Amino acid sequence: MSINMLQCSGAEDMRGGSGSQYNSYVTLKLQNVKSTTVTVKGPSPCWEQDFLFETNDVNQGLLIEVWDKGIIWDRAIGYHYLPLPQVPPFHTR
Amino acid sequence: MSINMLQCSGAEDMRGGSGSQYNSYVTLKLQNVKSTTVTVKGPSPCWEQDFLFETNDVNQGLLIEVWDKGIIWDRAIGYHYLPLPQVPPFHTR
Repeated sequence: MSINMLQCSGAEDMRGGSGSQYNSYVTLKLQNVKSTTVTVKGPSPCWEQDFLFETNDVNQGLLIEVWDKGIIWDRAIGYHYLPLPQVPPFHTR
Repeated sequence: MSINMLQCSGAEDMRGGSGSQYNSYVTLKLQNVKSTTVTVKGPSPCWEQDFLFETNDVNQGLLIEVWDKGIIWDRAIGYHYLPLPQVPPFHTR
């Protein structure tokens, strides 16, 4: 099964509007494989990147992490675990 | 408490010598903070980078991940969880 993340919607007003200083990116992890978006500035980032994952195990899930890129450290803004059966059919083939 | 990773030793002959094609990097995670090394080629990478982490909770641990950087995906080569009490005194202050 391939999962094609055709769209990645923006995050609105992260941290109550104080997110204008954010340089945020997303990592997508499936089992031992990871893909990363580019870094986008501002409080309402939209990455609009395609990602292809391949797996034969539909009982796995996609770990989505949003990070704020810093000079010394990157800070986690949020996490979401998406079980593969919950991925919309439009995004799988 | 600050943890200063003064040295990061090399990984020897990853995957039995087939690692000559590796472009590997390391991520270090402590709670919601992450630092990443540069990417180094070859089967015996050595990163030699300093990292500073700050925490008031000595019961936490450092999650160390080694990744092989790819064009589409990055693949996890290995993980190690290092409880802070096991970090050598030379590396903490």
